[in-house]
Amino acid sequence: MKARTRFRAPAGLKLRDADAGATPLRDNGGMHPKSKDQIKAHERELTDALTAKISLHQQMLYSQRKQKVLLVLQGMDTSGKDGTVRALFSRINPMGLNATQFKAPSLDEAAHDFLWRIHPHVPGAGEIAIFNRSHYEDVLVTRVQKLIDDKECKRRYAHIADFERLLAETGTVIVKVFLHISKEEQRARLQARLDDPEKQWKFDENDIVQRKRWDDYRDAYERAIGATDADHAPWYIIPADSKTHRNLLIATLLLEVMEDLNLAFPEPDPRLSALKID
Amino acid sequence: MKARTRFRAPAGLKLRDADAGATPLRDNGGMHPKSKDQIKAHERELTDALTAKISLHQQMLYSQRKQKVLLVLQGMDTSGKDGTVRALFSRINPMGLNATQFKAPSLDEAAHDFLWRIHPHVPGAGEIAIFNRSHYEDVLVTRVQKLIDDKECKRRYAHIADFERLLAETGTVIVKVFLHISKEEQRARLQARLDDPEKQWKFDENDIVQRKRWDDYRDAYERAIGATDADHAPWYIIPADSKTHRNLLIATLLLEVMEDLNLAFPEPDPRLSALKID
Repeated sequence: MKARTRFRAPAGLKLRDADAGATPLRDNGGMHPKSKDQIKAHERELTDALTAKISLHQQMLYSQRKQKVLLVLQGMDTSGKDGTVRALFSRINPMGLNATQFKAPSLDEAAHDFLWRIHPHVPGAGEIAIFNRSHYEDVLVTRVQKLIDDKECKRRYAHIADFERLLAETGTVIVKVFLHISKEEQRARLQARLDDPEKQWKFDENDIVQRKRWDDYRDAYERAIGATDADHAPWYIIPADSKTHRNLLIATLLLEVMEDLNLAFPEPDPRLSALKID
Repeated sequence: MKARTRFRAPAGLKLRDADAGATPLRDNGGMHPKSKDQIKAHERELTDALTAKISLHQQMLYSQRKQKVLLVLQGMDTSGKDGTVRALFSRINPMGLNATQFKAPSLDEAAHDFLWRIHPHVPGAGEIAIFNRSHYEDVLVTRVQKLIDDKECKRRYAHIADFERLLAETGTVIVKVFLHISKEEQRARLQARLDDPEKQWKFDENDIVQRKRWDDYRDAYERAIGATDADHAPWYIIPADSKTHRNLLIATLLLEVMEDLNLAFPEPDPRLSALKID
């Protein structure tokens, strides 16, 4: 089954019932069980092979300068957004690749509509853009912290739908990924940051505050995903408790998307092919 | 009657029937007819008085940092877009005022959706933004030159409507002005540019080419205005054969818009008012 069918957010999504620890692509070795480290190493290899293919497709995308790809990464704190970008895109030609991390809006950004700071970063023809957090924060953290009411939130869903339709109708393939981790996995990752002197700089005390609102965030995600999932702007739910398997899943999904673009390098020009440089 | 009612584009607008030479606010002196120069001088004085009031309102707008005003200026070549900006905004505090002239898109701009280059220039809270040409060029010159077909044009009308709804719902008062000149007035203005050594630099041979498509442009304007006029994003048809009267009309309209925002300077803080600087 296509990854795009298999991981597409279902109507009436209930994140509570979606297994964040699932590893649907994992090969446990059958008769010859592998150790956990062996499995991880194997998944890393598979992911590397997929990203090499994605890289080739990205070159073709860039050479054609016609289509556009937007990958939106959302998920709870510690769900692996940064790690996904690092694992999948570190070895891809940065020419034509543009990753943007959206943090709390500046005063100037807050003085405009919530899509004002987003729009400049959407992909141009031939480009892949990656949003590490995105315009969805404006219907998530704002909603949970009650900075906006329900009416304003619904209005924003509609603005997001309009905006994504504009992008899709002007040649952008949109892929929205929710990195789904369990509350227990988040606990372990936060604790690991605290315990490791080399990771403690990543720890943000605000994460503890947000963690207390876990259920509210989960509800806000369910509603936002339900309201903005569309065939031209689909949401995918990626189980993300395993980092290596998460990367494998997203690489699989993204390669499938790129393959379906039917990319190729432009046809050689016979006039140029015949040219001899003196 | 309110200027906003009087000059609002009617349903089923026919520019052919709208008198570009009309001077509805002109005072001809009644029993004491004035010379043309006297009338013009009088209209300049009236306009200056209005822009002084607009300037005060703009200061209040800026001091409050809540509301936003977007003035879109469209019209045939030589219809007076630059002249309007110069006449009305030269003496307004540039802090909080932002005028953008949109020309033919660059390669980078053309590689994105047509609103990508527009969105960064919309007004923030407390600002007035002026668009000298705008996103409407993408349903006008592109349509006349058949760079887009009818289906794509209608799709863009819908994208424009979505975009302007986003702006309006996030606190932007939108005022769209069509500067309506007659074909004969354009002839006279182009000829004047050719004949005056100090103005000839303004002449663009392409204006002659576009002038041949006058009727096509008029039709494209009628359709675009009809498709995108809305109470939250209204179009106004301003007769613009007379430059001084055009400025008077637009200043009247804009002051009315600003007055209806019910602006005021923020309330003084009693704590600060009681403060004595040593």
